[in-house]
Amino acid sequence: MAGNRKRWSDRLYIKDLADRVGETHILEGWVQFTRKSGKIRFLGLRDGSGIIQCVMVREEMDDQYFDLFSQLKQETSIRLTGVVQASDRSQFGVEILAKEIEILGISNQFPVTPKEHGVDFLLGNRHLWLRSKKQVAISRVRSTVIQALRDFLFQSHFVQMDSPILTQSVGEDPSGLFAVDYFDLGTVYLAQTGQLYLEASIAAHGRTFCFGPTFRAEKSKTRRHLTEFWMLEAEMAFFDNDDNMDFEEDMIKFVIQRVLEQSEWYLRQLERDTDRLKSCLTPFKRLSYTEAVDIVQKKGSSVQWGDDLGAADETMLTEDSDVPAFVYNYPKAVKAFYMKNNQEDPRTVKCADLIAPEGFGEIIGGSQREDSLELLEKRIKEENLPIENYEWYLDLRRYGTLEHSGFGLGLERLVGWICGIPHIREAIPFPRLMERVTP
Amino acid sequence: MAGNRKRWSDRLYIKDLADRVGETHILEGWVQFTRKSGKIRFLGLRDGSGIIQCVMVREEMDDQYFDLFSQLKQETSIRLTGVVQASDRSQFGVEILAKEIEILGISNQFPVTPKEHGVDFLLGNRHLWLRSKKQVAISRVRSTVIQALRDFLFQSHFVQMDSPILTQSVGEDPSGLFAVDYFDLGTVYLAQTGQLYLEASIAAHGRTFCFGPTFRAEKSKTRRHLTEFWMLEAEMAFFDNDDNMDFEEDMIKFVIQRVLEQSEWYLRQLERDTDRLKSCLTPFKRLSYTEAVDIVQKKGSSVQWGDDLGAADETMLTEDSDVPAFVYNYPKAVKAFYMKNNQEDPRTVKCADLIAPEGFGEIIGGSQREDSLELLEKRIKEENLPIENYEWYLDLRRYGTLEHSGFGLGLERLVGWICGIPHIREAIPFPRLMERVTP
Repeated sequence: MAGNRKRWSDRLYIKDLADRVGETHILEGWVQFTRKSGKIRFLGLRDGSGIIQCVMVREEMDDQYFDLFSQLKQETSIRLTGVVQASDRSQFGVEILAKEIEILGISNQFPVTPKEHGVDFLLGNRHLWLRSKKQVAISRVRSTVIQALRDFLFQSHFVQMDSPILTQSVGEDPSGLFAVDYFDLGTVYLAQTGQLYLEASIAAHGRTFCFGPTFRAEKSKTRRHLTEFWMLEAEMAFFDNDDNMDFEEDMIKFVIQRVLEQSEWYLRQLERDTDRLKSCLTPFKRLSYTEAVDIVQKKGSSVQWGDDLGAADETMLTEDSDVPAFVYNYPKAVKAFYMKNNQEDPRTVKCADLIAPEGFGEIIGGSQREDSLELLEKRIKEENLPIENYEWYLDLRRYGTLEHSGFGLGLERLVGWICGIPHIREAIPFPRLMERVTP
Repeated sequence: MAGNRKRWSDRLYIKDLADRVGETHILEGWVQFTRKSGKIRFLGLRDGSGIIQCVMVREEMDDQYFDLFSQLKQETSIRLTGVVQASDRSQFGVEILAKEIEILGISNQFPVTPKEHGVDFLLGNRHLWLRSKKQVAISRVRSTVIQALRDFLFQSHFVQMDSPILTQSVGEDPSGLFAVDYFDLGTVYLAQTGQLYLEASIAAHGRTFCFGPTFRAEKSKTRRHLTEFWMLEAEMAFFDNDDNMDFEEDMIKFVIQRVLEQSEWYLRQLERDTDRLKSCLTPFKRLSYTEAVDIVQKKGSSVQWGDDLGAADETMLTEDSDVPAFVYNYPKAVKAFYMKNNQEDPRTVKCADLIAPEGFGEIIGGSQREDSLELLEKRIKEENLPIENYEWYLDLRRYGTLEHSGFGLGLERLVGWICGIPHIREAIPFPRLMERVTP
């Protein structure tokens, strides 16, 4: 084992010190900040589990250690021995009275200082920017959100069925595909969705999901687009469009509850108004596309019945709302071929988008799926999709077809809303944009 | 809500019927098999939560329902109403006395019958093959393994930091990269590893992982290669090579324990000898590369000190073993540039591969990472890698470098071993091979 460190599972970290006042411990981590106040020196030590203030007083430590202070530049890695003391200013209610310090790795002129930097500079230094207070908080919330979604799915008896990335052209938007040269088989594409594969797996497992990177080669430079993003997709046998909305609403509430329980400290670092999130634990709104068009028209939108709702329309719909809103049953013409025809109004399909409040826009798109072989074949032909690529998908309607529904959730959009950050490029560790694929 | 179904969260499935003997329930699912025995008809109903035997007796149901039996071909989807009865032959200890049956979706001549099929036929019908008993079991175990790995990481205070797929050429094997044309930025590649990105994130979070699809454009057609596979990668600040092995061993044992608890039924479907898995809950072997070479040479291998160990050598090493074996400190020349130089024997690096028992081969590759800026720059130059692509990676040694270690685990290899299946193409829902990218 390294140095005098204990077995990995027995080590103490900053997060573990809350009830250890008076004990002496060794911590390893990075200098987040330093400051002087008269004869006293302070440093913020970050070890990955949290940040703690360490106090350096000449009378309390050897000169050889105290005099290291001038070398403790931002992001220097150190090993620090000290005594845990109560403090009401800190994340864990304690601070450290430093006794010994050892420099492990120097750090001169760390590029990302607490001052303002341009976006391009920050994105170019994303590998270092990730250490800053706000980015640490966003990453923590993202990780908590992911596991919350997964825990909800597992407790709801889902099976994870990973869908492939390398696929023939099957999906929603043939124009936005990244192409890959694949051995002797020619061009294949990076999947835009795993939905069709999930539909194949529900006959085996009833409820399935996949959760991984998804690709869109769209020439969009909005604050809500990434070329590579994470999507949770779920598919449920014997669920109709209403079941789908019920499930999504339960899931989102579960996630918000979990984040409030586990990540409130990090939401505070982001200055997120957590009351806005708490108010989403009440019933969501549900309105038809037709009602939604009426509402946004009255607010001045030029959208006409039959048009897709734009980001501005979505903002209008929920800017004054405390809770997310489902908009259901869109016109068939603006939605994907696999959505189920709505017999009560055949101009529309049985689908629902979930729009976040406070203008954060769409976070989930879902629908009941067309389960009739004839109607599905007809739609594929109407859309001029290469039907030979969909033969296997049509098989699912040939052999024991069933009522079923599912949805796709954009992880970065959900994290962006929960964190209250306007641009989703900060909601993923290493964002890929039209003009950026590094670091 | 669809039909007369309850709210999604209140519905009963086959798995819930064990303690409901005497109650009447409605089930929806697929006909897995049928058989006759005298006047009695049997059908196996699968609803995704499990399989149950349903008994049809003319005296117990209306003729209109009993006479449907001849239409209940394999994979027909049906709604069945019946009474729960005790039975000691079934997954959940109960069977159903059928009362009413409704056909939801027909199924004529389902292609994947219980008889033997060729591999190519099965892979071509993967979307249907997934419903068969053995494939259902493998998918279940895979899903359980994934969540077990994640639960272990979260309880060990890891943060999920998703690494990008679209990257410049950074990784292990420049020859095995899939190329993608990326807007105006030219050619980018599908990542072979997220490790370098994880190394960037440990200064923020201490312990991080990523878990997603990984790509290798290798022209390999072995039973242990996929062009797209899932890899768990983890990286830990202030872990040395021994810590790394300790952690991996704890993690694998946690997974085996979880699978034995939650998936023993499915392991029985696969005829897996679970005693072999249970014996892996004892300490793993640890041997140096040099010791390993001695052992396999004595068994007849032609491997020489300095060569990489091949799959045949790995098999020899553990074919008689009850437990997995770590082989540590390989020659520098056969390992990646980022592995830490071993000062005690500079011909070698501080690394360890974990080899599964019973000849299932390598499942984890890990190492301590080179934390010296100078040594790392030297290695990048020695390997003729494009150093300008690694400047951001070198930054991690410029600003607060530290002792750290990590590993990559091949999910399909782990699942293959646990399930006892020789070819990993069955350990992923939709395998991608050199010659196959559909369905």
